[in-house]
Amino acid sequence: MDTAYIINTLFMIFSTTLIILMVPGFAMLEAGIVRTKNVTSVLTVNVMIYVIASLVFIFLGYNIAFGDTQITTMSSYAFVMFQMAFVGKSVNIMSGGVGERANIFPLAIFTIVMGALIYPFIVNISWGSDLLKDTILDLNMHDLAGSTVIHSTGGWALLAAILIIGARKGRYINGKIRVIPASNIPLVTLGALLLWIGWFGFNGGSVGGIATKELADSVAKTIFNTNTAGLAGALTAGIFIYIRYKLFDITMILNGALGGLVAITAGADLFSTIQSLAIGGIGGILVIIAIPLFDKMQIDDPVGALSVHLVNGIWGTLAVGIFILDISLLEQMKGIIVIGVLSFGLSFLSLYLINKIFEFRSSDEDQMQGLDVSECGVEAYPEFRRTI
Amino acid sequence: MDTAYIINTLFMIFSTTLIILMVPGFAMLEAGIVRTKNVTSVLTVNVMIYVIASLVFIFLGYNIAFGDTQITTMSSYAFVMFQMAFVGKSVNIMSGGVGERANIFPLAIFTIVMGALIYPFIVNISWGSDLLKDTILDLNMHDLAGSTVIHSTGGWALLAAILIIGARKGRYINGKIRVIPASNIPLVTLGALLLWIGWFGFNGGSVGGIATKELADSVAKTIFNTNTAGLAGALTAGIFIYIRYKLFDITMILNGALGGLVAITAGADLFSTIQSLAIGGIGGILVIIAIPLFDKMQIDDPVGALSVHLVNGIWGTLAVGIFILDISLLEQMKGIIVIGVLSFGLSFLSLYLINKIFEFRSSDEDQMQGLDVSECGVEAYPEFRRTI
Amino acid sequence: MDTAYIINTLFMIFSTTLIILMVPGFAMLEAGIVRTKNVTSVLTVNVMIYVIASLVFIFLGYNIAFGDTQITTMSSYAFVMFQMAFVGKSVNIMSGGVGERANIFPLAIFTIVMGALIYPFIVNISWGSDLLKDTILDLNMHDLAGSTVIHSTGGWALLAAILIIGARKGRYINGKIRVIPASNIPLVTLGALLLWIGWFGFNGGSVGGIATKELADSVAKTIFNTNTAGLAGALTAGIFIYIRYKLFDITMILNGALGGLVAITAGADLFSTIQSLAIGGIGGILVIIAIPLFDKMQIDDPVGALSVHLVNGIWGTLAVGIFILDISLLEQMKGIIVIGVLSFGLSFLSLYLINKIFEFRSSDEDQMQGLDVSECGVEAYPEFRRTI
Repeated sequence: MDTAYIINTLFMIFSTTLIILMVPGFAMLEAGIVRTKNVTSVLTVNVMIYVIASLVFIFLGYNIAFGDTQITTMSSYAFVMFQMAFVGKSVNIMSGGVGERANIFPLAIFTIVMGALIYPFIVNISWGSDLLKDTILDLNMHDLAGSTVIHSTGGWALLAAILIIGARKGRYINGKIRVIPASNIPLVTLGALLLWIGWFGFNGGSVGGIATKELADSVAKTIFNTNTAGLAGALTAGIFIYIRYKLFDITMILNGALGGLVAITAGADLFSTIQSLAIGGIGGILVIIAIPLFDKMQIDDPVGALSVHLVNGIWGTLAVGIFILDISLLEQMKGIIVIGVLSFGLSFLSLYLINKIFEFRSSDEDQMQGLDVSECGVEAYPEFRRTI
Repeated sequence: MDTAYIINTLFMIFSTTLIILMVPGFAMLEAGIVRTKNVTSVLTVNVMIYVIASLVFIFLGYNIAFGDTQITTMSSYAFVMFQMAFVGKSVNIMSGGVGERANIFPLAIFTIVMGALIYPFIVNISWGSDLLKDTILDLNMHDLAGSTVIHSTGGWALLAAILIIGARKGRYINGKIRVIPASNIPLVTLGALLLWIGWFGFNGGSVGGIATKELADSVAKTIFNTNTAGLAGALTAGIFIYIRYKLFDITMILNGALGGLVAITAGADLFSTIQSLAIGGIGGILVIIAIPLFDKMQIDDPVGALSVHLVNGIWGTLAVGIFILDISLLEQMKGIIVIGVLSFGLSFLSLYLINKIFEFRSSDEDQMQGLDVSECGVEAYPEFRRTI
Repeated sequence: MDTAYIINTLFMIFSTTLIILMVPGFAMLEAGIVRTKNVTSVLTVNVMIYVIASLVFIFLGYNIAFGDTQITTMSSYAFVMFQMAFVGKSVNIMSGGVGERANIFPLAIFTIVMGALIYPFIVNISWGSDLLKDTILDLNMHDLAGSTVIHSTGGWALLAAILIIGARKGRYINGKIRVIPASNIPLVTLGALLLWIGWFGFNGGSVGGIATKELADSVAKTIFNTNTAGLAGALTAGIFIYIRYKLFDITMILNGALGGLVAITAGADLFSTIQSLAIGGIGGILVIIAIPLFDKMQIDDPVGALSVHLVNGIWGTLAVGIFILDISLLEQMKGIIVIGVLSFGLSFLSLYLINKIFEFRSSDEDQMQGLDVSECGVEAYPEFRRTI
């Protein structure tokens, strides 16, 4: 029995390390996508989120989420740290989508609210102590590693934030969309691949242990399916884009992979290989379809986070109900709706109130000049001459 | 017995994760070496290879390689994914060497052929079901993690590709070699170091398990020797270059390290520390000698892949026969030759046929403008002003 | 018993891999901080240090440090490689601080001396065979993973080096400090985050094993505390800077995180979560206070290594004596002083002698032009136009 405890602890440390590798993953992805004048600001936000969300989760959020749940299968430090590694992700998803025009200070305040209250409450009713047990809102969805709990939650928060903060200055002019190209494709690629690898820890670790033959199989299958869905999402996105434009657009291919990874996250432990292929593949196409749709609605999301995380978070959670016989599609839909309403509502409320006191939106001049100067006082690439 | 199964599964997941870290490794290395105008294209090819080669290997190649081999010492998902993580490497080696002038679409077709057929067949006769057993071509070489099976295979495919595709426009003019400097040295360094670390999973995982005292020792020794050979290759390459030019050329030092790592790959489980030092050290020197030789023959290989992977793949496989008493040098040579003929022949044939339908070589104008625009429609660094 | 041996070996391989991830971590951090004209040189030094320090440690230093210590709880290869992964760090700390004006060749010579003699001797009297046992200098401090043994040692060596080599040309003119901004903030961020993650292996692995329930708890607690201190250091540094300048300076936030990580390193296995928070938080503030102080003293340290590693190495070692009842503050102070005197003295002596033969300081012209051209013959970003 001690051997199981030891192996589970080691496995959880390994998984947690991979998830924390997603901190540079998100940071590099977003730093590569935004314009050079906003790179430092985006990096600062990413680091800030990891710092603040983790700290408030350790000292407040964890208790809200899990109360006095007894951890006996592994070191409780390993369990708490694994859970802590998740919390920043939901804010990361949101912060990326409001990049290039959101001020850091109010984002920091929202990170506290999200990390200490909103996210922990959503974990509570999904994976944790379950406050809503035996009420009409009791959730019984299967969401292994958070297609809904993390990705949709972050996506709904982002949607609320975009409604409050608005689009980047100059992004939509007289109904025309101005294309703003990513400034550093190697960083985008590095970031997306680090996220991909981090996902193995995210989903694999969410199995909760590895110390029986059945658990070992489940962990390995989960990671295998996770990777397969990422591959499939990249493939379908790439084919789709190539057919349409005769070009290989790597940012779309990588977004397709991330879409597939989000989609598989709810049920990576349950699907067959072929199902994983299908779910990931559909996820990739959804990203490609959703990105221009959001743009048409003038919902300005520089990193495509709504398409990757919200759309595919919903799709992945539904897919469990569709493909897995034992799981009720209705319960999956109930989970999506309840958590959607809570995430959007609580996020909107918090963002609205914060915005009353500390304005979220950077001034037009600051946006023109870039947030790196106004917010950070540190240019990202001071020695490189810019074309614009 | 379950404990062994669990620990082996965890170990294999760990090893596989490290190998997949070589995907950003290769991508960053190659993106740093090519000119800025071809960076997106090189990144796209690297991601595309991981996606396509892995998928065709899972659904076709694995079965060709291993048939119905029973996996009982670990979760079969972990084993399949570990094997899958290898397949892209052989194509990566090839794609890097034809960088800056090969079109992506035919490369994608070749990736299918390599991942579904050529590489699996070579694995079959080396590590797998062994179709050629009891024939005159039956192979009995010791090649722990693929000095021949992966690195030479990729190298031979590259040689075939260079013969068909030719050198980059303007690389050799009237017998003069035009030096094209790497565009981003931090990316080169990051990529090479990620490859180095990934190699621990590559070679360590190839021991096949860790769940006995003997296996644990063998894994640790393998990783230790792998690292030692990388160190030695970097050292000898660095000394060699410094003596000749009084300069510390980091691209050569890193290529030396990679050469040492390729060389140790065939026998990292067998060598002593001193032998690892010698084999890696010779590997580093071979790289430094081979790079200008290939250039003299006007075999244009921007990343030095032939010198790193083909030359050292051969050297490392021979070294096992030379240094290890129980292993027949003749069997090692037979392995090198049989796999060399097969890899080169099958690759050449496939590339030749693909080239008849979808031309591999980018037009002169596309090469001048850079493949990022013509192939991807996405510039790597659109905001940075270029000197050329 | 074999199971413990196997699990410890796997754990040590995992930890070592994380530590080696600090090689690209340091390299990217330093490459991002220096000016573009010195980037290749800084990268070369980082790779060179890993290569030379590791090799001399394996063949000479290890024996000086540990003599014929019997390793029975894991594969001895895993233990030796774990110890080897440490040695380069102390030289890295030093080399970063003399960046942009120190020649590579004498740095290579000093790396040999440090890796083969000075660092192993310091390990010997702290963690190893203990030559000074039963003498008046016998050390009994608690220094889990090297706040003093590694970080202060590197810091003292750096102080000695700065005294000998001097400040960068043009850094201090008529008592005025010229601010030299970091050239690539994404690299700084990536590097710092890789270091952060590598620290989990550094401190976690230093517990020495994981194969009992108590050890598993200790490892998980150590990693948890390590992360908490990093979070706290980033937080306090960020708050401090924001209050003072109303700006979010990410280089200071990351330096604060690193300061917190250095500070927790001596006692991460002993502290409570709150204590870790306090120690890391103070560490972050110390960095912010110390950086301008060293600058006022015209001690030119481009990466802030003295503030991060020396100041916090001392603080972290003291903190164990202050916060942990069973541990004598006097013994901690004795350790700090004895190792400080030895590190500074032996480093100064070696650097002084090396400097007599191979001048450390680059000529003014080489500094103006950048060391990449004079030392490496390889520009880091040859295609990017510079503003200066």
